[in-house]
Amino acid sequence: MTNENKWVYMFSEGSESMRNLLGGKGAGSAEMVELGLPVPPGFTITTEACLEYFRTPGNLPDELAAELTAELGKDTTGDFPRDLADRIQAALAKRQGEFAPSVAAQVQESLAAVEAEKGATFGDAQNPLLVSVRSGARASMPGMMDTVLNLGLNATTLQGVISRSGEDGERFGWDSYRRFVQGYGSIVLGLESEEFENIITANKARLGKKDDPDFSADDWKVMVDEFKALIKDKTGHDFPEEPREQLDGAIRAVFGSWFGQRAVDYRNFHSLGHDWGTAVNVQAMVFGNMGETSGTGVAFSRDSVTGEKVLYGEYLLNAQGEDVVAGVRTPEKIGTLKETMPAIYQQFLEYAEKLELHFREMQDLEFTIEEDTLWMLQTRAGKRSPRAAVKIAIDMVDEGLIDQLTALQRVEPEQVDAHLHPQVDPNTEISPIATGLNASPGAAIGIAIFDADEADRRGRNDEEVILVRPETSPDDFHGMAVAQAILTARGGATSHAAIVARALGLPAVVGSEGIKIDLEARQFTAGGVTVNEGDLITVDGTSGNVMLGETPLIPGEITPELERLLGWADEQRRLMVWANADTPEEAALAREYGAQGIGLCRTEHMFREGDRLPIVQEMILAEGEKARTHSLKELLPMQRSDFYGIFKAMEGLPVIIRLLDPPLHEFLHSVNELRDELHELEAAGDTEGLARAEKMLSRAEDLYEVNPMLGLRGCRLGIMLPDVYRMQVRAIIEAAIQLKQEGVAAMPEIMIPLIGHINELRAVEAELRETANTVQTEKGIDVDFKFGTMIEVPRACLTAGEIAEFAEFFSFGTNDLTQTTYGISRDDAEGKFLLEYVEKGILPDNPFQVLDRNGVGQLMEIAVAKGKRAAATFKKDLEIGICGEHGGDPASVHFCHGIGLDYVSCSPYRVPVARHSAAQAAIEVQVTRDI
Amino acid sequence: MTNENKWVYMFSEGSESMRNLLGGKGAGSAEMVELGLPVPPGFTITTEACLEYFRTPGNLPDELAAELTAELGKDTTGDFPRDLADRIQAALAKRQGEFAPSVAAQVQESLAAVEAEKGATFGDAQNPLLVSVRSGARASMPGMMDTVLNLGLNATTLQGVISRSGEDGERFGWDSYRRFVQGYGSIVLGLESEEFENIITANKARLGKKDDPDFSADDWKVMVDEFKALIKDKTGHDFPEEPREQLDGAIRAVFGSWFGQRAVDYRNFHSLGHDWGTAVNVQAMVFGNMGETSGTGVAFSRDSVTGEKVLYGEYLLNAQGEDVVAGVRTPEKIGTLKETMPAIYQQFLEYAEKLELHFREMQDLEFTIEEDTLWMLQTRAGKRSPRAAVKIAIDMVDEGLIDQLTALQRVEPEQVDAHLHPQVDPNTEISPIATGLNASPGAAIGIAIFDADEADRRGRNDEEVILVRPETSPDDFHGMAVAQAILTARGGATSHAAIVARALGLPAVVGSEGIKIDLEARQFTAGGVTVNEGDLITVDGTSGNVMLGETPLIPGEITPELERLLGWADEQRRLMVWANADTPEEAALAREYGAQGIGLCRTEHMFREGDRLPIVQEMILAEGEKARTHSLKELLPMQRSDFYGIFKAMEGLPVIIRLLDPPLHEFLHSVNELRDELHELEAAGDTEGLARAEKMLSRAEDLYEVNPMLGLRGCRLGIMLPDVYRMQVRAIIEAAIQLKQEGVAAMPEIMIPLIGHINELRAVEAELRETANTVQTEKGIDVDFKFGTMIEVPRACLTAGEIAEFAEFFSFGTNDLTQTTYGISRDDAEGKFLLEYVEKGILPDNPFQVLDRNGVGQLMEIAVAKGKRAAATFKKDLEIGICGEHGGDPASVHFCHGIGLDYVSCSPYRVPVARHSAAQAAIEVQVTRDI
Repeated sequence: MTNENKWVYMFSEGSESMRNLLGGKGAGSAEMVELGLPVPPGFTITTEACLEYFRTPGNLPDELAAELTAELGKDTTGDFPRDLADRIQAALAKRQGEFAPSVAAQVQESLAAVEAEKGATFGDAQNPLLVSVRSGARASMPGMMDTVLNLGLNATTLQGVISRSGEDGERFGWDSYRRFVQGYGSIVLGLESEEFENIITANKARLGKKDDPDFSADDWKVMVDEFKALIKDKTGHDFPEEPREQLDGAIRAVFGSWFGQRAVDYRNFHSLGHDWGTAVNVQAMVFGNMGETSGTGVAFSRDSVTGEKVLYGEYLLNAQGEDVVAGVRTPEKIGTLKETMPAIYQQFLEYAEKLELHFREMQDLEFTIEEDTLWMLQTRAGKRSPRAAVKIAIDMVDEGLIDQLTALQRVEPEQVDAHLHPQVDPNTEISPIATGLNASPGAAIGIAIFDADEADRRGRNDEEVILVRPETSPDDFHGMAVAQAILTARGGATSHAAIVARALGLPAVVGSEGIKIDLEARQFTAGGVTVNEGDLITVDGTSGNVMLGETPLIPGEITPELERLLGWADEQRRLMVWANADTPEEAALAREYGAQGIGLCRTEHMFREGDRLPIVQEMILAEGEKARTHSLKELLPMQRSDFYGIFKAMEGLPVIIRLLDPPLHEFLHSVNELRDELHELEAAGDTEGLARAEKMLSRAEDLYEVNPMLGLRGCRLGIMLPDVYRMQVRAIIEAAIQLKQEGVAAMPEIMIPLIGHINELRAVEAELRETANTVQTEKGIDVDFKFGTMIEVPRACLTAGEIAEFAEFFSFGTNDLTQTTYGISRDDAEGKFLLEYVEKGILPDNPFQVLDRNGVGQLMEIAVAKGKRAAATFKKDLEIGICGEHGGDPASVHFCHGIGLDYVSCSPYRVPVARHSAAQAAIEVQVTRDI
Repeated sequence: MTNENKWVYMFSEGSESMRNLLGGKGAGSAEMVELGLPVPPGFTITTEACLEYFRTPGNLPDELAAELTAELGKDTTGDFPRDLADRIQAALAKRQGEFAPSVAAQVQESLAAVEAEKGATFGDAQNPLLVSVRSGARASMPGMMDTVLNLGLNATTLQGVISRSGEDGERFGWDSYRRFVQGYGSIVLGLESEEFENIITANKARLGKKDDPDFSADDWKVMVDEFKALIKDKTGHDFPEEPREQLDGAIRAVFGSWFGQRAVDYRNFHSLGHDWGTAVNVQAMVFGNMGETSGTGVAFSRDSVTGEKVLYGEYLLNAQGEDVVAGVRTPEKIGTLKETMPAIYQQFLEYAEKLELHFREMQDLEFTIEEDTLWMLQTRAGKRSPRAAVKIAIDMVDEGLIDQLTALQRVEPEQVDAHLHPQVDPNTEISPIATGLNASPGAAIGIAIFDADEADRRGRNDEEVILVRPETSPDDFHGMAVAQAILTARGGATSHAAIVARALGLPAVVGSEGIKIDLEARQFTAGGVTVNEGDLITVDGTSGNVMLGETPLIPGEITPELERLLGWADEQRRLMVWANADTPEEAALAREYGAQGIGLCRTEHMFREGDRLPIVQEMILAEGEKARTHSLKELLPMQRSDFYGIFKAMEGLPVIIRLLDPPLHEFLHSVNELRDELHELEAAGDTEGLARAEKMLSRAEDLYEVNPMLGLRGCRLGIMLPDVYRMQVRAIIEAAIQLKQEGVAAMPEIMIPLIGHINELRAVEAELRETANTVQTEKGIDVDFKFGTMIEVPRACLTAGEIAEFAEFFSFGTNDLTQTTYGISRDDAEGKFLLEYVEKGILPDNPFQVLDRNGVGQLMEIAVAKGKRAAATFKKDLEIGICGEHGGDPASVHFCHGIGLDYVSCSPYRVPVARHSAAQAAIEVQVTRDI
């Protein structure tokens, strides 16, 4: 129970259970204090105070505040309007937000407590207290405000710092001061950090200095003045000298960054709550740059790449936190600390173990050593590679730290997925030249190419290319489609490049700000290396790393650890996982990956195979049922052997065969191709070929459709050309009978596509059931089979009650259902406007990848409810599943679990992810129910 | 309250209030008895007995009976499966159905009562009772069993008839007997009537006779034996001699005919209840063929063509009912009876007036005069021409017979519609050479053409053709599309010809069995006339008549009578009627027809006009917003003047402008055309033209879409090319401001098409509202306008609650909504499979003509409910209407009234029908509520 009027908590007052109120950083610090670890004194301003800030009258224009309140009042997870975020930022920039008096008072009080504990005073000339200010939301979230260090420095307090910092105090003090002004200027006041760097560069030139450490105290003094002048110029205000004013500015900036564009995008993308708010952590500074007995570092409690149970990280002696990141000096591996400072190492190891045991989770730790004293600055769950995630989860179960359910929840679906993609060999020592956002998993090697046309040209030439762009736009689509991977310098998880890469299943690293692209020179530089067009690079979309040259890759595989984890998943999940497979080989692979049935076997793929196509074309060219008989007779044994193979591979498991679905003209050459052919044949004097081509052209013209997706296909074919479906059913039943004779149990389920009206199903099914019965009578052997229907147009959902009277199963074809529900043709939209919609935030996701719950999902819920009610009335079973691509998408699997489907069916490669997601969905529901 | 165990009612026991139980014929006879009119004694076996017959165990196989019970238990109005009807017929043909014992007993009892009243005995050799047996459902229904006359005749009773029939008794008796055997054989036993005619023809040849009356008694005796042999041969059973067996057979046949193919089709088509059943009327025969003091006739109580209040009909002396129809002798006009039999005429006139007054409805009467005694055989509401329907309704109100509400209900929507089509001048004396089913209204003149290819050729040549076919199939579509009218020899109201004609808005007469087509000779004969290909004929789809040559036609018009009726309709209806109009002329016409607003003004039509198209093409070819500016500037004044004209025509009434909707490639030449053009320009050496054509080709290829209906169109254009929408909104607001300055009130409503996700509307509307505000600020004048959206994809319906937050109106675009709900492209489907679906009974109607209530309607109900709920939450008005073609379809208007829309919008020509239908819907709801 939290106190509604308490806005600020000392670390010693908090706990992990208050994570929502204190944020991750605040809760972690509180726990460390509770465990008796050395933590510099500090306090947390709560997430509630953040929300109160936006509610405080005057901070936002009334209308905007009302709009924000309305938006947060809705269930808007993952759908916060970008324009609203922009208007909030603009309004905040204009006004100096006020804190509620109680907030201001409590900050003051807590500051006094920190002063007391630290024995230093804020703004004091002799012994000044300096603090760091960090944002910290409930979940780690890029785009939120960075850390501000050394806050409290000004002309007065600087003297105290200098006098307390030994021999090199003057330089140390001025360096700290300039870092603070520079950091505060860019982070809090919003100037480009480049502008400060420019000043430093100019001074280097002027003074003939090479590196930052070469500057003297006086040099920095000059630059601090220049920094302040820049700030005055850009913001119109003097740099705040008063420490409390500095602190308030930093707090305001943290609060405001909650609705920053990147943070909003991130929450939209990850479906995080916009009404959470962020906490602010204010903590007394400790210094790792006080000489050789000081230092700073970060470390994981286990190896974040392999998952092994060893400390993993790095540190720098005589350095502040930012130096570790800045890359000016190369940090040491954490293991070497054992030799340099054995006692500190031992102490740190102990703390790491203690924290891991306490949180029962691998920890990411930040520490500073100040003159031989170890200070713990942060603890949080550590990010890890996909393989490490699985290994750590498994190991922790073996170690008795967590149970299997927790292990399943600890691993992200994307981490399971990443196992199935090629990845960088973990046994390789890699040296990335750049890193960026790991936007789409997998690793690939190719030559760097800087424009889409060239990529397209080379790609068609079978060259393996990696498209490198500042950012991508729809005009680049053709180049992306042929690339092995995408690398961009700008953009985030919802940028065009990221969206398209995921849509195409390509590895992508985006927003890799370290690479500087020169399009004219056709090269980029990164990490001091220049990469020219045509040079080989490796892009690892799983980790976000970019390497020069060929980095050894290993193919995707299900590791023994993942195998174990998926075994646990199978015990937890209620949803079955089936696979979409058109051949015995695919079926076998699916079974190996754990598929419990085939949810979609598309017979049209069989029709397209080399030796079949001419026969299929003959069939289409034939006029009337009688003329088709010959071709169908030829196709029958071929289809029978197709089904025989798949049924055999899936022995004992159900196999859903979808009867012929696509428009017939797909099997003929296109009208344009045929026209060209005609000219050629004419020129060559091939009269026989000409006659055939003319016939095909005439038929192709007959069959031409303006909107083939909505034309003569699916069951409409079954009604207009009933003999084709009869042949297919005969082949299915004959194959099942043959297998029964061989002692193999086949479980065919015959699926009639594109049903929109119950009478379509009634007409087609009655006829096909008769065919099935005829075949069984002929052979004197009965086999089990089902008849069912695809639910893939809205009308089928709306009238599912009627359809359930005749269907033994429903299979949601969510690709077509999405197309018809939205009125969007996927073929046309993805290249033209759909991805731009996602990029612009008009759609939260590509609805062909993530099931649109509000629209398509609503129809599915209607269909399930009506279907099940009708099935109950008729006292029959109704098996319901999904066979659209969504079947392998984790969020969609959760939804399918929620609405009570029996199975999801997806590509064989998505089967492991689906098994895991189905388990997570079951556990989530269980947990929710427990609460 | 009916007695559940009473299956049979004497005429004297019934009444009009028992119409559902006794059927129309039974109830009419009962009322005539009640009114004291001379009716031959008889009784009615109830519709309940009919239903009981199907339920009686053993009459149908158990499974089939269960299936039928289930089907009738559902609300299946208009959707009874044809295959089920077929299986019932097949089962009935195999079995000799049993009557429940109580039914059999009550028939026997009632027969005894008839015998007593008539003083004759069934099967008696001296004074035999003969009866007629007729079906009679609640509503008149073609396809039900015809009348069987003279039932009760056999070798024994024949002697009684002969002895009682005067000098020519022998011939009269045998003629009656052969008519009975012939009629019973074809009607009850299901033989082809042609087979009997063949026997007669053979005997004519053998005996050298010309007409039927030339045969002697002995001749007929021979033929009766031949008839009986034929029946034995075809049915495997002897002709039933026992009168009661004859009667039971006839009753069974009437019952069975309830599920006959034609009856089921008719009920499906007219949405009549399949669970009504039919009654059977058994009535003592009276004879009009007993000499010159006998006769028979039919007459209407008012003129059924003009509606004038005069007796209208015809009669034949010394004839039986079938002679009037058979056309062997030409009947006399009823007026002449006044001279030939003045007393009888006076009596009949009195009865007609009495019945009309009693039923307060124009009556269709059948009578027989038996030896100077008038017998009334039937009374029922009379069929009438559209103009007569309106005139009679109006007159009856003026006469105080009915009120205005009843008058509105008496006129069918089709009758209102027929006023708007060309029709045969009612002042013309017509002599049809054939009649058939009036399948699609209107009259047309053209040359008879016997195949679709020729019709197509001549039609393209601007010849006015009428396609005459035995029946039509999808292969004839191209010929139908260019014809003025369709005439077929076979098929009913749901035949391909009928469906396509209605879809194309062409007059059609179908199933005109009197015409004999000789396709090889390219001619048809009808009514003794031979019509060769190229001869002019007139087809009147309103009446079903076919005339040789040019019959004078009058154009469609709103008669003063119809004007009055529509005035009453306007007082009753709640739904507003708006019109779809793209030009000021159309808008003016719509207003003249009573439109209260424009529900859809399509701006793309304006873009296609001659002088605009090149500018529009320039705009499309321009790359990027800046390059488009020039074209848009040129288009702005043009669009402004378009809107100015329409707003002015609709002064004071709302006008909904739909922003640009179609895919842009519709404005360019097709890729194929452009390729051809390119070749020509190249050959001609026109380099400038070539450059432009190449650019257009390249752009057309860019814009090419696989499924344009689901592609870059509607609001998607507004998002990708925002300047085009901005130009349109500017034109709208500028036009409204200009009119305001001129003192004319414009009420523009700006409609954004194809919204699928609320964010689309949010993005587009925000921008356009800004444009509207800018224009108003510029001009310093504010005008009223609304922003709203078309609801035309399923997702918009499902998320209507979200959309209602931003939209001020919804307009259902049911064309696209039907396409997406069904997953059917209208362009592709109607020519290929959709009409065949309707013909095969897979779909009850063409869903693009009659709104699909179960599917599309369900989505509309969801949208209305969600939209209104949200509007209430936001305390705002939400105007909801429909602007698809369905807006002018009566059944769809009823539905729209029922779900609470504010208006329907349809073609100007459908406005009168919609006004009337809206009134009927309102009255129906009122009546239902009263009950």
